[in-house]
Amino acid sequence: MAAHMTPEEFRRYGRQVVDWIADYQEKIGSYPVLSQARPGDVLASLPAHPPEKGEGFEAVLADLDRVVMPGITHWQHPSFFAYFPTGASGPSILGDLLSAGLGVQGMLWATSPACTELETRVLDWFAELLGLPDRFRSDGPGGGVIQDSASGAALAAVIAALHRADGGAAGRDGIARRHTLYVSSQTHSSLEKAARIAGIGAANVRVVGVDPVTLAMDPAHLDALLAEDAAAGALPVMVCATVGTTSTTAVDPVPAIGEVCRRHGVWLHVDAAYAGVAAVCPELRDVNDGVAEYADSYATNPHKWLLTNFDCTAMWVADRGPLVSALSILPEYLRNRASDSGEVIDYRDWQVPLGRRFRALKLWSVIRWYGAEGLREHVRTGVRLAAGLASRIAADPAFVLLEEPRLGLVCFRPRWDGLDGAEADRATLRVMERLNASGDLYLTHTKVGGRVLLRVAIGAAGTTDAHVDAAWRRIREETAALS
Amino acid sequence: MAAHMTPEEFRRYGRQVVDWIADYQEKIGSYPVLSQARPGDVLASLPAHPPEKGEGFEAVLADLDRVVMPGITHWQHPSFFAYFPTGASGPSILGDLLSAGLGVQGMLWATSPACTELETRVLDWFAELLGLPDRFRSDGPGGGVIQDSASGAALAAVIAALHRADGGAAGRDGIARRHTLYVSSQTHSSLEKAARIAGIGAANVRVVGVDPVTLAMDPAHLDALLAEDAAAGALPVMVCATVGTTSTTAVDPVPAIGEVCRRHGVWLHVDAAYAGVAAVCPELRDVNDGVAEYADSYATNPHKWLLTNFDCTAMWVADRGPLVSALSILPEYLRNRASDSGEVIDYRDWQVPLGRRFRALKLWSVIRWYGAEGLREHVRTGVRLAAGLASRIAADPAFVLLEEPRLGLVCFRPRWDGLDGAEADRATLRVMERLNASGDLYLTHTKVGGRVLLRVAIGAAGTTDAHVDAAWRRIREETAALS
Repeated sequence: MAAHMTPEEFRRYGRQVVDWIADYQEKIGSYPVLSQARPGDVLASLPAHPPEKGEGFEAVLADLDRVVMPGITHWQHPSFFAYFPTGASGPSILGDLLSAGLGVQGMLWATSPACTELETRVLDWFAELLGLPDRFRSDGPGGGVIQDSASGAALAAVIAALHRADGGAAGRDGIARRHTLYVSSQTHSSLEKAARIAGIGAANVRVVGVDPVTLAMDPAHLDALLAEDAAAGALPVMVCATVGTTSTTAVDPVPAIGEVCRRHGVWLHVDAAYAGVAAVCPELRDVNDGVAEYADSYATNPHKWLLTNFDCTAMWVADRGPLVSALSILPEYLRNRASDSGEVIDYRDWQVPLGRRFRALKLWSVIRWYGAEGLREHVRTGVRLAAGLASRIAADPAFVLLEEPRLGLVCFRPRWDGLDGAEADRATLRVMERLNASGDLYLTHTKVGGRVLLRVAIGAAGTTDAHVDAAWRRIREETAALS
Repeated sequence: MAAHMTPEEFRRYGRQVVDWIADYQEKIGSYPVLSQARPGDVLASLPAHPPEKGEGFEAVLADLDRVVMPGITHWQHPSFFAYFPTGASGPSILGDLLSAGLGVQGMLWATSPACTELETRVLDWFAELLGLPDRFRSDGPGGGVIQDSASGAALAAVIAALHRADGGAAGRDGIARRHTLYVSSQTHSSLEKAARIAGIGAANVRVVGVDPVTLAMDPAHLDALLAEDAAAGALPVMVCATVGTTSTTAVDPVPAIGEVCRRHGVWLHVDAAYAGVAAVCPELRDVNDGVAEYADSYATNPHKWLLTNFDCTAMWVADRGPLVSALSILPEYLRNRASDSGEVIDYRDWQVPLGRRFRALKLWSVIRWYGAEGLREHVRTGVRLAAGLASRIAADPAFVLLEEPRLGLVCFRPRWDGLDGAEADRATLRVMERLNASGDLYLTHTKVGGRVLLRVAIGAAGTTDAHVDAAWRRIREETAALS
């Protein structure tokens, strides 16, 4: 019989791994944020062939430090300001560990009722915490579900919207006419990806204009495009409004967009991947204005700003009918009495994959550990730190601030007096690369109006004033060095 | 500041969770395999509203026993014989815990080089362990990637195949003509789901006939359908051959199917979700006959029979070009020097979602803990137990065995002398329901040739002769009780 790890061995190695993680948490600030590895470094330090005989778990732990850690970019580092944060926290890690330990697969209600019903309840809780509308709750025609990512949620929304728009014709017979999808230049790339995957095609993703200052979608232009496309015989499938764009956290005017969608009978998906969770704070709840009245589907990521480790996207639909109709197939080997009764939810019909992990455990652990108060406090810390950094940037004549941030992202650039636009952009990117190469902090960039901006996204659990102060000092140093 | 769990608290609660899981492993055999919960039971025992204040982790652990456990169907129970096994093992759980503890997001090489390069190396190892062809290795034009599920791999294969078939036209302009996909009646439902999602449509999933005894796809019928469809102006996108069907572990004749695909220039995807991993044993390697010569893409699930907890599907492509071309989009905020250099793999372009967890850690832990020897031994144990059960069924005049199993699944039914087909099927389902309701074991059913069969799938780490003996005794008891 294969040498399975015994429960006693699991206890021993499990403690070692827990201690290893706690040690890592204690010293994470001492690592360079961005991995200093060059392409191929990690690969070259791993054996070319798998072991013939088992090696024991000490060998794995030893290689973790020797091989893996030099190739880690530390997303939980308090000076990680790149992209958006990817949450993690003690309760989330332990919730995830419980999920792995139970090892259940919740494709159907019957294959672990708790995996389904805890998810249902936690998503109802989470809707309440964010002030989302009752029609997203599971006791009506809608409901919530955990998806792998905002990309997965966007694809699911497209599939549901398509099903509603054509009565299931494309799912049955294939796409046979031009279908269109509406985004702005600021919408996340996952929407174009979803359009390609769904057979709609990138060229039929219509790019609605944005306000040049706020970068918010122009509802009048959306209206005109929808009318034009319908008149030309296309089938408009879905509009995606964004609450907190990836580039700059711009917020599309959901109420006005929703009115347009309603008039044209088009599905409105709201992608609030980053910003939606900010609504745990009543004073930020207006980011979701219009969602209650108009959104057919909505997604936000506890795995970004809300202390839950990847993957955990919360998605709600106002009517689960089109989603389930589009994705449900019942082969004989999945038939069971509970599903046949219609009394239960089978979440496999709400997502692309069949199988599913027990992800509700980690979101449940996070909500219970922090409570609503603790979650609000975490978001407010990020908002306060971002505002503080922004005010220093605004006060410094060597820098240009894009705008006062409302959330945790600050966009800005060095002014570079005397350089033309292209020269200035190259200099800004050099500052970023020098900062990232130093290992002191990690930030990324975007482009607005053709100009490169630096992005500082604040939201890791360990980030404090001191880390933001140090980041600002280093940014000024590297900028001065190139001026 | 929000009350984050300190490293010291993480040590304390982490040990409690590790001990909780070890305790669970020790007593798992004492639980009813199938949850006895009725719809709504778990929901009703959870508070209607989220907590305002944080509750501490003891509260979560207490509710785990009180609320969650009664709603668990124990997939790791040694008497779990339903569906296919969903693997778990100590090293896998700990590898997953390391992934959660590191909390990195590996969408790009740069966002954690080790997350990408360890995956690359481990997939090369795994291809070697299974005797898969060199052209799947990452040092050529192909390569391996971890997907969330065989469903996700199937969708990715469809997208890549479509891209190759039409030069990217559908991804660009949308599907504008009839596209077709080829499966058999025994192919997993995820292929129809992928066809719906990809805009091909369920009606364009062509069902190739099967041999009535072996249930293997008929290559001559496939050939005829491909010719017919192409002559009618359709664009054949992909053929899916299955190695180990979900219903009965039938194996399609990949070499003959591959010849047909090659003649018609159609992408061949091999779905070996369950059976593919059996190839760790040289004596079972012929399940993958033809894969080396003909498969454009191939998927098998370590998270089924190979002791790795969900989700972990290993997928390989012979040429990564069409997959990456179909799924790659590069917005400014994801641009980085490493990606621009072309020297690195960005696995985000190999999958539907953008974000990705560090799943290679758990597969690496499993391979190193067990070694090739231990993995073979685990598969051989399942094969031996299945063969033993099958021989007893074959020797019992009250039962009909479908066929001698080569892998870990045994399909059979009570003979029910004197009952007509429909009556016999109802009686067989009643036996199954009584067995499942007893909590002693959990098995599921399928239909072959219009008749209900029971499925006993063996493969949990803890399953021994005693568990299979007990299952067989209980099956005979319940059958006798209804005879």
